[in-house]
Amino acid sequence: MEFQYETSFDVKEKINQSKVAILPVGAVEAHGPHLPLGTDNFLAERLSHKLAERTKALVLPTLPYGQVWSLRNFPGSINIKNNSMIAFLVDIGESLYKQGFKTFVMVNGHLGNQTALKEAARVLYESCPEMRVIYFFYPGMNNAAAEVREKSSTHNTYFHACEIETSFMLYLAPELVNMEKALTDIPTIPQHADFTPTPWEDFTETAVLGDASLATKQKGEHIINTALENMVKIMKDLK
Amino acid sequence: MEFQYETSFDVKEKINQSKVAILPVGAVEAHGPHLPLGTDNFLAERLSHKLAERTKALVLPTLPYGQVWSLRNFPGSINIKNNSMIAFLVDIGESLYKQGFKTFVMVNGHLGNQTALKEAARVLYESCPEMRVIYFFYPGMNNAAAEVREKSSTHNTYFHACEIETSFMLYLAPELVNMEKALTDIPTIPQHADFTPTPWEDFTETAVLGDASLATKQKGEHIINTALENMVKIMKDLK
Amino acid sequence: MEFQYETSFDVKEKINQSKVAILPVGAVEAHGPHLPLGTDNFLAERLSHKLAERTKALVLPTLPYGQVWSLRNFPGSINIKNNSMIAFLVDIGESLYKQGFKTFVMVNGHLGNQTALKEAARVLYESCPEMRVIYFFYPGMNNAAAEVREKSSTHNTYFHACEIETSFMLYLAPELVNMEKALTDIPTIPQHADFTPTPWEDFTETAVLGDASLATKQKGEHIINTALENMVKIMKDLK
Amino acid sequence: MEFQYETSFDVKEKINQSKVAILPVGAVEAHGPHLPLGTDNFLAERLSHKLAERTKALVLPTLPYGQVWSLRNFPGSINIKNNSMIAFLVDIGESLYKQGFKTFVMVNGHLGNQTALKEAARVLYESCPEMRVIYFFYPGMNNAAAEVREKSSTHNTYFHACEIETSFMLYLAPELVNMEKALTDIPTIPQHADFTPTPWEDFTETAVLGDASLATKQKGEHIINTALENMVKIMKDLK
Amino acid sequence: MEFQYETSFDVKEKINQSKVAILPVGAVEAHGPHLPLGTDNFLAERLSHKLAERTKALVLPTLPYGQVWSLRNFPGSINIKNNSMIAFLVDIGESLYKQGFKTFVMVNGHLGNQTALKEAARVLYESCPEMRVIYFFYPGMNNAAAEVREKSSTHNTYFHACEIETSFMLYLAPELVNMEKALTDIPTIPQHADFTPTPWEDFTETAVLGDASLATKQKGEHIINTALENMVKIMKDLK
Amino acid sequence: MEFQYETSFDVKEKINQSKVAILPVGAVEAHGPHLPLGTDNFLAERLSHKLAERTKALVLPTLPYGQVWSLRNFPGSINIKNNSMIAFLVDIGESLYKQGFKTFVMVNGHLGNQTALKEAARVLYESCPEMRVIYFFYPGMNNAAAEVREKSSTHNTYFHACEIETSFMLYLAPELVNMEKALTDIPTIPQHADFTPTPWEDFTETAVLGDASLATKQKGEHIINTALENMVKIMKDLK
Repeated sequence: MEFQYETSFDVKEKINQSKVAILPVGAVEAHGPHLPLGTDNFLAERLSHKLAERTKALVLPTLPYGQVWSLRNFPGSINIKNNSMIAFLVDIGESLYKQGFKTFVMVNGHLGNQTALKEAARVLYESCPEMRVIYFFYPGMNNAAAEVREKSSTHNTYFHACEIETSFMLYLAPELVNMEKALTDIPTIPQHADFTPTPWEDFTETAVLGDASLATKQKGEHIINTALENMVKIMKDLK
Repeated sequence: MEFQYETSFDVKEKINQSKVAILPVGAVEAHGPHLPLGTDNFLAERLSHKLAERTKALVLPTLPYGQVWSLRNFPGSINIKNNSMIAFLVDIGESLYKQGFKTFVMVNGHLGNQTALKEAARVLYESCPEMRVIYFFYPGMNNAAAEVREKSSTHNTYFHACEIETSFMLYLAPELVNMEKALTDIPTIPQHADFTPTPWEDFTETAVLGDASLATKQKGEHIINTALENMVKIMKDLK
Repeated sequence: MEFQYETSFDVKEKINQSKVAILPVGAVEAHGPHLPLGTDNFLAERLSHKLAERTKALVLPTLPYGQVWSLRNFPGSINIKNNSMIAFLVDIGESLYKQGFKTFVMVNGHLGNQTALKEAARVLYESCPEMRVIYFFYPGMNNAAAEVREKSSTHNTYFHACEIETSFMLYLAPELVNMEKALTDIPTIPQHADFTPTPWEDFTETAVLGDASLATKQKGEHIINTALENMVKIMKDLK
Repeated sequence: MEFQYETSFDVKEKINQSKVAILPVGAVEAHGPHLPLGTDNFLAERLSHKLAERTKALVLPTLPYGQVWSLRNFPGSINIKNNSMIAFLVDIGESLYKQGFKTFVMVNGHLGNQTALKEAARVLYESCPEMRVIYFFYPGMNNAAAEVREKSSTHNTYFHACEIETSFMLYLAPELVNMEKALTDIPTIPQHADFTPTPWEDFTETAVLGDASLATKQKGEHIINTALENMVKIMKDLK
Repeated sequence: MEFQYETSFDVKEKINQSKVAILPVGAVEAHGPHLPLGTDNFLAERLSHKLAERTKALVLPTLPYGQVWSLRNFPGSINIKNNSMIAFLVDIGESLYKQGFKTFVMVNGHLGNQTALKEAARVLYESCPEMRVIYFFYPGMNNAAAEVREKSSTHNTYFHACEIETSFMLYLAPELVNMEKALTDIPTIPQHADFTPTPWEDFTETAVLGDASLATKQKGEHIINTALENMVKIMKDLK
Repeated sequence: MEFQYETSFDVKEKINQSKVAILPVGAVEAHGPHLPLGTDNFLAERLSHKLAERTKALVLPTLPYGQVWSLRNFPGSINIKNNSMIAFLVDIGESLYKQGFKTFVMVNGHLGNQTALKEAARVLYESCPEMRVIYFFYPGMNNAAAEVREKSSTHNTYFHACEIETSFMLYLAPELVNMEKALTDIPTIPQHADFTPTPWEDFTETAVLGDASLATKQKGEHIINTALENMVKIMKDLK
C-alpha cells in the first residue's frame, strides 16, 4: 500500500488493481511550542493512510514542503513558491498518468498549499484528460469542528496549532504533541488580513491561533473521521 | 536533530548552534525485483543521519522525488523535470539562508539528480552569498567500490540496483532488501548511451545493472563509510 | 478622479495629493440571459467610483478580462490564465509605485480573479516595499447577503447571476439588467466541485446559480453599501 | 455589437453570424497638457467602433494598458512589459478561437504595442490555425498624413500628441481635447534614438512631438478615414 | 581586434583601451539561388570589421543564427525564437559588462532580428546601467539606396536577396555571389503582410524580392559606406 | 558541405542526400597565455569538419558561445546560462527537424556545455521523435590521453589549456598556438570542487591545468583521431 516500499516488478499489477494514488502534501512550518515543525506532514501522511485503507489506494511518499508565505519569517519555516509547487506537482501527476493511474488524490495538510494544488489540478485536467485529480483539505471539517469546539474560531478559514489542529495531532500523532506546552494565544486577526498581504508576525508571536490547551483526542477523532468519510464519499461519487 | 520534529520555539537556538542543514534527496524509481521503488530515498535519508551525527547538523525531511528520465518508463518510476527540481531546491535553500543557516548540504541518493543539484547550488551561490551549498553523491565511492566489488562495473558512472547499490541497502536498510529475488542482469550498455538520449529499456528489462546477488552488508559498509568520511572531511575543509 | 482623463501635466500633483490608485478588475463571462457578459466589469468599475469618492482616490481604467476557468466553455466567456493575470497586474503595480502611489487597491468584481490578485499582491509586497496593495472582493458581503436574501445560497462561496449578483446590478447598473429574462435555476452543485476541477457546465446550463427573479435594487444597495463601508474602514485602518 | 453588453444566451448566434472580433488596444501614457493620459484608449476604442460598423464585427472591451517603455518616466504613464502583453493577448485570442471566431483584429492605438501584438499574432498563428489574426496601427496613415500636415514630422515613425494625433482626437474624441493648452514642442530627436534605448525625457519635457496647435478635426478625419478604408479593404482581402 | 584570437593574458589591457565590443548578428536563411544561406552572417561580420577598424573596437565571434520566422519554411532556413535570442544576447551583454566594456554594439545583418536586439538592449539598460547598448541595421541605408537603385523597392522596409542586398555582398563578400544565377522576381507583397503573420511563401518562391541582376559592387559600396559613416558618427555622438 | 555556403536552391537536395547536420559548439573563455579565447570554437569547428568528411554530413555555423560559469571571472570569458543555451539549441534542432534532417550531431569543444547539450537533446527527443540527437565531447579521449600524456591529470574530468588541450590545438589549429608562452601550472584542485560551486580563480591564476609545454601535435593527433573514430563508429551504430 505504500508505493515506495513496492518493487518495480510487483507494482504494475497493484496499479492495475487500484488505479488510485494518494499524495500526502504537507509543510515545514512553525506550530507553536507544543507541536513540531512537521505537523502538517504528519497529519497529511497519517490521514492518507487511513484514506488508503478505505479506498484501496496506493500512498506515495509525502511531499514534505509547502507554501508557507504567511509564517515564513517564523523560526523553522521553509517556504516553497506557488509556481515551484505547481511545477513539481504537475510532474508527479503526469508520471502517475503514464503509469496507468486514473485517480490522483492530493491529501493536503496545510491550507497555504490549496492554491498550488488547485492550479496543478487544472493543468493536469488538460494534460491528463482521463485522470481525475482531487485536492482534499479536510472536507467538511468546519461543520464538524463547530460541533466540538469550545472556543470560537479566530478566523473563518484559518486554524493553526490551536484547539482544532492540536486535536488532530492528538488523534493522529499523539506521541509528537507536548500538551504541557500547549498555550492559549487568541490573537485579534485584523480584518485586512483577508485583503492585503499580512505576515502573521503582525498579529501573533506564537503562531498559535487559539487555545491549544482545549485540544483532545476525541475532538480530533470526530473531525478527522468526518473528513475521512467525506473523502471516501466524494471519491466514490467521482468514480 | 531531525528538523521537522523540533518546535519553532526551540529550533532557533539549534540553528544557531549548528548552522548546517542536510537535505536528503532521493527518487521513486524502478530498482529491480529485490529493492523497493524508494531505494534512493532510504539511502539518502539514512546516510544523512549518519552524516548529521558526525557533523552535528540538522536533517531536513527527505525530498522523495527526483529526475529519473532514463528509467521513467519502468513500472513505478516518477519523474520530476530538471527545472522543477531546481526551482524547488532553490526555494528550500533561500528559506534556509533566511533562517540563519550557513551550510546547506544536499545528500543525494540518485545520480540523475546531480544536474539539478549542481545548478541549484549555482543559483544559490548568487542569491545566498554567505551560505555554502554542497551536493554530495557518495564522494569517493568509485575507488572504494573497486576495492570490494567482485564483478566489474557495467559503466563508468552508472550503477543501479546492482552488487554495489544492493550492498548499500544491506548496510543501511537491510529490512527492505529481498535477497532471494536478487538477480543477475549484466547488460551491454551501448557506447552511445553517453552521447544520445537513451532510455534504459533499450538495454535492460530489469533495471538491474549487474549481479545483485553478490551484494553484502560488508561491501556496503566499506563504501558508505568511505563516502561518509569523505563527506565529513570535505565539510570540515570548507569551514 | 478618473486617471485616464487627467493629463500628464496635472496628474503628478493629484497623485501627490491622493497617493491611492484603484484598479477595477472584472471579466467577460456568461451571466445568464438577463445580465450582460461584462457584468463583472460594470460592477467593479462602478463600485470603484463609489469607493474613490469616499477615499479621494484615483480610478484607473478597468482591466476588463479575468480568469474564468469554470465558465470558459459557456458562450461569450474569455479566459485569462492566472500567470498572465499576475504578470499584468504586477507590471501595473510596479508602474504605480514608480509614479509615487502608496496604496494600490484592486476592486475585484469576479471571484475567479482572487487567486491572481492575491499572488500579484505578494509579488508587489517584495518589489514595492513601501506601497500597500489591497485586493477587495465585496468584503463582508456574506453576512450582509444573509440579512436580505430570500433563497439560501447554493454554495458557500460561489454566487453568480443570482438573487445576489443581479441585485448588485440593479443597484449599480440597472439599465443593463433585463429582469424579464431573469430565471430561476437552482443547481445542485456537487460536493466534489470544491475538490476537483469542475467546469460549471457539469451542473448548470444557464450559469445562473439561484433565483435571479428575487433580485431587487434594495438588496443590492444593502450589500454593496456594507461592502463599501468595509472597504473604506479597512483602507482607513491600513493608513 | 459591443461584446460585453451581449448576454451569453444571445452571443453564440451573433458570433456565428459575424465570426469577427475586434479588440481595441491602447495605453495609459503622457500626451502633453492638452490630451488625456488615456488618449490611445479613446482612439483605439472609437476607431474600433467605426471599423465594426463597416465590417459587422463584435467589439471586445478595450485593453487599456500597453507597453510604454519610452515614456514610462513621465507622470501618469503605466508600463506593461512586452511578455506580459503577449501572454495576455494570446489568452484572449485562444478563448476567441474556442468561441468560434475566425478573425481576431487588434486595433492598436499605441505604436509601442506593435511588437507585442505582432508576436502574439505569431503565437496564435500556431495555436489557432484556422483563425486569422490581424494587428492594425492606422494602416496607410503616413501617406494620408503627408497630404494634410503643415509641419513636417519630427521622426519617420514616431508621432505623439502632435499635429497628427491631436487631429485624431479632434475627430474621434473632441470633448477630451483642450486646444487652449495645445503647445508646440519640436524636439530634435537624436539619430541614435533608433539604435539605442532612449527614454523620451532625453529630448522632450512635454511628450509633444511637434506643433499640436495645428491640429484640426478635418486633418484627423482625413487620415482616420483613410486608415479605416484600408482596414476594411485588408479585412475583405483576407476573407 | 578579433576578440576570440586574443589570449586571456592580453585581453584585459585591450578591453581597457577600447571598452567597445562589436557583436555581428546574422542568420541562416534562404537568399535565392545566387547568394548563400549565411549571407546575413557574412555581411554582419565583414561590416563589423570595417566598423571596428574605424572605432578601435573589439569584434566578438559572430552569432550566426537569427529569427527568420517569415522564411522559416524555405529550404535551409534555421529559426530562433525571439525569446531565445533575447536571453542569449542578454547573457553576452551582461558578461561584457562584467569584463569592463562600456559600449556593446550589435551589428545586425538580418532585419528579422531587430525586435530581439531592441528588447535585449532594453533589458541590459536596466541590468548594466553604465554600458551603452547599440543595435545597428544599416543606419541611413534607405536614403542611400534610393540614390543608387534602378528598380524601386517592393516594400518600404523589407529588402532581401535583391538589387540592394546582392550589391552589399558584391562589395563585402564578392567571392560568395554567383551573379549568373541572379534572378528577377518582383513579387507583389500583399498589403496585409504588414498586419497579419504572412510567411513569405505566400508571395515568393525564390525569396528574392526584386531584380538581383541589377546589383553592383558600386551600389553596395555606396550604401554600406553611408551606413558605416552613420554608425561611426552615432557611436561618436554617444560617447 | 558547409551549410551556410550553400544556397537555398541547392540545399534541399543535399539535405535529402545526407540527412545529418553537425553543429560545432564552443565557447569564449580564458585559456592561458598561449591559447586564444576562442580555443573551444576552433577545436569544435575543425573537428566537425573532419567528422563531416567521414560521414558526409553538413556542417552548420559554429555556435561560438557557451556556459563558462567556472572561468567566468577570468579576463575575456563570456558566459551563457544553461537555460539560454538549451532554448537556443532546441530552436536550432527543431528547425533542422522541419528541414528534413534525421540526425543532429552537436560536436562540443567545451566541457561546461555538456549539461545544456544533454538537456537540449532530451527536449528534442520529445518534440522531434524521428530525429536522433547526439552530443559529442571527444568520446573515448580519456583512455587515449592516458596512452600519451607525460604528466598525470590534475582532475578526473577537467582538462584545460594543458598538455592535452594544447596538443589538440597543435594538431587542429597550430597557427593559433604560441608555444613560447606555454606554461606549467599544476594546481591542487580541492576535492570539494566536485561538490560545491567553485570558481576556478580559487585554485588557478592562469586557467592552465597542467604542463602545457609538454603538448605536441602527435599527442593531439592521437587523441583526436581516436575520438573521431569513436564518433564515426557511434554514428554508424545509431543508424
